[in-house]
Amino acid sequence: MEALDYHAEERRKAEFDLEEMKIVWAGSRQNYEVFRKDNRTMLSRKDLFKDTLRKAAHAWKRIIELRLSEEEAHMLRSYVDQPAFTDLHWGMFIPAIKGQGTEEQHEKWLPMAYKMQIIGCYAQTELGHGSNVQGLETTATFDPQTDEFVIHSPTLTSSKWWPGGLGKVSTHAVVYARLITGAQDHGVHGFIVQLRSLDDHSPLPGITVGDIGMKFGSGAYNSMDNGLLRFDHVRIPRNQMLMRVSQVTREGKFVQSDVPRQLVYGTMVYVRQTIVSDASCALARAVCIATRYSAVRRQFGSQNGGPETQVIDYKTQQSRLFPLLASAYAFRFVGEWLKWLYADVTQRLQANDFSTLPEAHACTAGLKSMTTSVTADAIEECRKLCGGHGYLSNSGLPELFAVYIPTCTYEGDNVVLLLQVARFLMKTVSQLGSGKKPVGTTAYMGRAEHLMQCRCEVERAEDWLKPSVILAAFEARAFRMSIGCAKNLSKFSNPEDGFSELSPDLLEAAIAHCQLIVVSKYIEKLQQDIPGKGVKRQLEILCNVYALHLLHKHLGDFVTTSCITPKQGALANEQLRLLYSQVRPNAITLVDAFNYTDHYLGSVLGCYNGNVYQRLYEEAWKDPLNDTVVPDGYLEYVWPILKQHIRTARL
Amino acid sequence: MEALDYHAEERRKAEFDLEEMKIVWAGSRQNYEVFRKDNRTMLSRKDLFKDTLRKAAHAWKRIIELRLSEEEAHMLRSYVDQPAFTDLHWGMFIPAIKGQGTEEQHEKWLPMAYKMQIIGCYAQTELGHGSNVQGLETTATFDPQTDEFVIHSPTLTSSKWWPGGLGKVSTHAVVYARLITGAQDHGVHGFIVQLRSLDDHSPLPGITVGDIGMKFGSGAYNSMDNGLLRFDHVRIPRNQMLMRVSQVTREGKFVQSDVPRQLVYGTMVYVRQTIVSDASCALARAVCIATRYSAVRRQFGSQNGGPETQVIDYKTQQSRLFPLLASAYAFRFVGEWLKWLYADVTQRLQANDFSTLPEAHACTAGLKSMTTSVTADAIEECRKLCGGHGYLSNSGLPELFAVYIPTCTYEGDNVVLLLQVARFLMKTVSQLGSGKKPVGTTAYMGRAEHLMQCRCEVERAEDWLKPSVILAAFEARAFRMSIGCAKNLSKFSNPEDGFSELSPDLLEAAIAHCQLIVVSKYIEKLQQDIPGKGVKRQLEILCNVYALHLLHKHLGDFVTTSCITPKQGALANEQLRLLYSQVRPNAITLVDAFNYTDHYLGSVLGCYNGNVYQRLYEEAWKDPLNDTVVPDGYLEYVWPILKQHIRTARL
Repeated sequence: MEALDYHAEERRKAEFDLEEMKIVWAGSRQNYEVFRKDNRTMLSRKDLFKDTLRKAAHAWKRIIELRLSEEEAHMLRSYVDQPAFTDLHWGMFIPAIKGQGTEEQHEKWLPMAYKMQIIGCYAQTELGHGSNVQGLETTATFDPQTDEFVIHSPTLTSSKWWPGGLGKVSTHAVVYARLITGAQDHGVHGFIVQLRSLDDHSPLPGITVGDIGMKFGSGAYNSMDNGLLRFDHVRIPRNQMLMRVSQVTREGKFVQSDVPRQLVYGTMVYVRQTIVSDASCALARAVCIATRYSAVRRQFGSQNGGPETQVIDYKTQQSRLFPLLASAYAFRFVGEWLKWLYADVTQRLQANDFSTLPEAHACTAGLKSMTTSVTADAIEECRKLCGGHGYLSNSGLPELFAVYIPTCTYEGDNVVLLLQVARFLMKTVSQLGSGKKPVGTTAYMGRAEHLMQCRCEVERAEDWLKPSVILAAFEARAFRMSIGCAKNLSKFSNPEDGFSELSPDLLEAAIAHCQLIVVSKYIEKLQQDIPGKGVKRQLEILCNVYALHLLHKHLGDFVTTSCITPKQGALANEQLRLLYSQVRPNAITLVDAFNYTDHYLGSVLGCYNGNVYQRLYEEAWKDPLNDTVVPDGYLEYVWPILKQHIRTARL
Repeated sequence: MEALDYHAEERRKAEFDLEEMKIVWAGSRQNYEVFRKDNRTMLSRKDLFKDTLRKAAHAWKRIIELRLSEEEAHMLRSYVDQPAFTDLHWGMFIPAIKGQGTEEQHEKWLPMAYKMQIIGCYAQTELGHGSNVQGLETTATFDPQTDEFVIHSPTLTSSKWWPGGLGKVSTHAVVYARLITGAQDHGVHGFIVQLRSLDDHSPLPGITVGDIGMKFGSGAYNSMDNGLLRFDHVRIPRNQMLMRVSQVTREGKFVQSDVPRQLVYGTMVYVRQTIVSDASCALARAVCIATRYSAVRRQFGSQNGGPETQVIDYKTQQSRLFPLLASAYAFRFVGEWLKWLYADVTQRLQANDFSTLPEAHACTAGLKSMTTSVTADAIEECRKLCGGHGYLSNSGLPELFAVYIPTCTYEGDNVVLLLQVARFLMKTVSQLGSGKKPVGTTAYMGRAEHLMQCRCEVERAEDWLKPSVILAAFEARAFRMSIGCAKNLSKFSNPEDGFSELSPDLLEAAIAHCQLIVVSKYIEKLQQDIPGKGVKRQLEILCNVYALHLLHKHLGDFVTTSCITPKQGALANEQLRLLYSQVRPNAITLVDAFNYTDHYLGSVLGCYNGNVYQRLYEEAWKDPLNDTVVPDGYLEYVWPILKQHIRTARL
C-alpha cells in the first residue's frame, strides 16, 4: 500500500489538512465545491438536477471568461463529467442545423445557438419507435394556405421520448417528423420547433412537455432531463424545415437537392469514432480503479503472520483484469485510427469519391458496437474485481456503469449495427468472384484462397508472440466464419428469410471481423514510431494479451474452423499465463499513464496514493443517514417494536 | 399487444378508475400505499430509509396480527421486496445464536429476539477483510480479573464494515473476533455484544457506529443501513461468547466441545440452497419483464403500412432471451433438488455420517457461484433486451440488478467458491485409482475409462434432442477438463504453486462440472411425474435449449476435448434454432407461469396486460421534476444564460 506513493512519508509530515489547503488554493470553499462530485449520488432528483444547472451555468461562465474554442469548451464539459442539457445543445442540436440546414438557416439560427440565446435538443426517438427511424409517427403537414407546417403527434406512441435536455430546459428542438404535402408522405425530415417561451419558459400552445422520470442508478443520467413531447397541431413557418437535402416550395412542391445523401454517412462515421474513443476512456477509468485497488487489497495467503497476498497477484484476478487493461489500450489505438479514417472519408467526399464509404460505414458501425458492449461489461467486471467495496457508490464504478450503458443502445443499437456489418460482409463475400476487390478493413478477404487453406504454424507457446501468426489466425477465423455463414445462407431460397434465420450466427461472424480490425490496428500501431524501448515492450505484451485472451474466449470459433488445432489453443493459453506475469510489475504504472486526476476518477478505491481504507472510513460519515445518531423514523417505527408486549404472536 | 389481455375490451368498458377502486378496496389510501414501491427510486437516502422502517414496522404488525409462522413471516417480508434490517435479524442474528449458542444462551437470548425486544445483526466482515474470515483483526481478550471479554478494534482495517442493520437500527450484534486468552490466539469466534441503549438508542460507551454510505443504484440496497462499527475496549460478560463449539472457562481456559465442527457445513448447505432458489426467482423476474415487453415492442419489418414486427420474433432476440428463460426453469429445478440434498445431509449429520458432506459442500458452493453469476449477468442482458426503455427505473430492471448483484460476493465470493469446487474435483480425480468411489454429483467420475473414450453419436441435428446424448457430452467434457487440469498440475513440483498458476483453467473445469449438475438434475426432473403432457413437452424443449445453448457457448471446451466434432457442434446449433421456434408461441405463457403479480414485479414494461406505452406515459408525470412546469434553478442558472449579451466569447 505504501509503495504506491513514494511521497507518503513526506505527506505524513505535513502539519495542515490537505483538503482545507485545497479550499484556500481554489480561492474559496465555493470555488472548490463548484464541480464537486462526491455528493452526487446522495442528492434527490430535484437537487441533482439543480446541481447540474448550476454546474452548466458555471462551466459556460468559464468558457466565456477564458474565451475557449469549441473544442476546448467540449473538453471542459467532459471534465465536469455530469450529463447535462448542454451536451445535446452542442453535440446534437447545433450539428443537426449545421449538417442539414441551408446557408440562410445557418445564418439565422447558429449565432443564437452559439451564444446560447436559445437552447436546443434533438427530438427524434419516440415512445414506440427507436432504431427504426423510418417508422416515426410524428407528422409535419404542409399547409399551403398559411405557408406553414403543422407538427402533430397523432398517437400515444408518437410522443417524442428520451431526448436529453428536452424535459425541462430546451427552448427549441430539431424535431424529426414525416413530411406530408398534399396527400403524399415524403418520409422523415428535420424541423426547428420552438418549444418554450423565451420570456417565462412556459411551453408554447399545443405543446406538452415534461421529464420521462428516473433512470438507472443514482446520480448518473438522472442529472439529465430526458424528456417527452407531444404536439397538438403546432404551426411553424415553412423555413423551419431543415432544407439542405430536400425542400418544400411555397407551392408545396417537394424537391430533392443535388447534395449527395451519402453526406449523412460522413457524420455517422464522425459520431461513432468519438464513441469508440470515449469507450477507451471509460474502460481505462474502470481498469484504473480496479488495478489500483487490486494492489491495495490483500486477502488470504498470509505466512507466519505477515501481510496477506495482494489480490493483483492472484492469477484469477490477473486473467480477468489484464485483458481489460489490454483492451483499453487496444480501443485507444483503434480510436486513433478511426480519426484518420474520418479524415480520409471527409477528403474523399469532398472529391465526390464515395467508393470507400460503405466499408468505412460498416467498419465504424461494427467498432462502435463491439467496443461499447465490451466496455459496458468490463466496467461491471471491474466492479466485481473490487469485491464487496466495489458496490459502494464512492468506488465510482456504479455511477460509471450507470452512465455508460446507454451507449450500447443509442446512436444505433449494438445488435442492429452488427447485423449491418454482417450484411456488408455477406455482400463482400458474394462479390469475391466478380473481380471487385474488397477495400479497407475487408481487404484481407481478397486473399480468399490463401485464407481457406492456410495452417497455423505454432509449435511452441512462444510462437504465439509473433504478430504475423496472430494476424493470420484472426484473418482466417474471420474469413472462414463469413464463408460459413454465406454457405448456410445459400441454402435458403429467400435470402431475407435466411438472413433472419441465421442472424445469431451472422452476429458472431461480424464480431470476429471487428476483433480482427482491432487486433490488426494494434499491430500496425506497434510498427509506428513509439517513444522509448520500455514502452514499446509493454505495448507488445498488451497486444499479445489482447489477442490471445480473445483467442481463448472464442476458442470454439478458431478450432471448429480449423484455423488452429486444440493443441495450439492450449499453447496460446499457456503463453497468455506467461504474459500476465510480465504485465504484473507494470500494471500500476500502466494505469497511471491514463493520467486521470483523483477528482476526475471520482473513486475512493482508485485514488492515486492508494490510501483506500482511511478514505472509505472518512467518506462513510458524509452519508445523510449519519447526520444524526438516532435515525429519522426511530421513534415512530422502531421504538414501538422494541417496547411492545406481544401477547398474540405465535412466535 | 391486445392479445395479451383477453379482458381488454371488458376493462375498457369500466366507468370508474381502477387505481381509485383499489384504494377503496384496500380500505384507505394509506393501506393501499403502505407497501408501494413505485416511488422508491425517487426518494432521498433519508426518506428511503424512513420508508423502510415504516414498512418493516407495518410488516411486523401484520405478522403479529395474523399470527404468522416464522416461514410465513419470511414470505411476507420477501413480498415487501425491500432490503431491511429485519432480514439480518431473522436471517443471520437469530440463526447464529441458534447454531453457535448453548442451550442456556438460547433460553436467554432467543425469546427476546423472537419478540424483537432486541434487534440484532451479524458483524463479521471488516473493512480490510472479507472472504478470509481467519484474517479478521477484531480481538476479544479474556480478562480473568473481571470474568469479561474486552472487544477491541486494534486497527482501522479491523473496523466492522458492511453488516446490514448495523448502521442505524440494531441494538445487538453477533460480533466475530479473535479470541485471546493469556497470550494465545484461538482464532475467530462469535460474541453477542449490545451496541445501543435500549432506552434512547444511543451507542454504548466505547462503540462507534454508523452507516457506510450509498450503494449501487437508486432504491435497491440503499434501504438497508449497512454499517461500520469500532470497539474501544468494550467489555462484555464471559457468557456472551457463543459457546456451543468452544468454551472459555471462568479460569480462562480454552476448551473445545465434542460437537462436530462439520455442523457448520450443514448450515452453509442450507444458506446456499436458499440462494440458488432465490437466483431462479430473480432470473425469472427479469425474464418475465423482457419476454412480455418483447411481445409488445415492435420495430422494423412493417409491410404495406401494417404493424412492425414484434421484437420477440427476431432470432437475435430469441437467441439471447430464450436461453435465459430456460435457465430460470433449470435453476428452479436444481434449487428443488438442493432442498432434498439439504434434508439428506441433515439426516446423515444426525446419524454422525459425514461421508457425503465434502461433496455436498462443494456442490452447493459451485451451484451458488454459478447460478448467481449467471443471474446477475442475465438481469442486465434482459435490460438490454428491453432496448432504451429498459434503462428507465420503472422498467424495474435497474433496481432488480442493483439489488441482486451483491449476491455474487456475499456468502462466499463466487470466484473463491469455484476454486473450492476445483480443489474438490482435483482431489476426487487424484483418488480415482485408489478404489475410493466418487459420490453424489461426482459419481460420473467413477466411469473414468468410459468417459475418456466415449464418442458422441450425433449424426443429425435431432439426435441432440436425446437426453442421454446431451448428458454423455456434458459428462465427458467436465471429466476431460478436470483430467486436463490434473495432468497440467502434475507438472509442478509444488502442487500449491501449480494450483495457483493454473487457477484460471481450474475455474473453467469447475464451471463445466456445475453446468453438468444443472443439466443432469433437469433431466432427472423430466423423469418425474409432471402434470399435463403439454407441460412436459415444454419442459423438454427448455431443457434442450438450456443444454444446447451452453454447448454452443462453450464450444471450444467440447471440441478441444474431442467430446464432439465441429460438425456435431454445428448440428447442435442448427437444432437450437429449431427449438427457439418451438419456444416462441409459448413464451408469454411460460413466464405467466412464474405467477408474479404486477405489484411484485414492479415493472411497467413487464405488466401483465401489456399496456406498456400508456403506463410509461402516466408514470413519467410522477417524477418530482414534473411537479412544476419551470424547474427549480431555472431563474438562477438558465435564464441568465439565455438573456446574456456575450461580448467576450470567441464563439
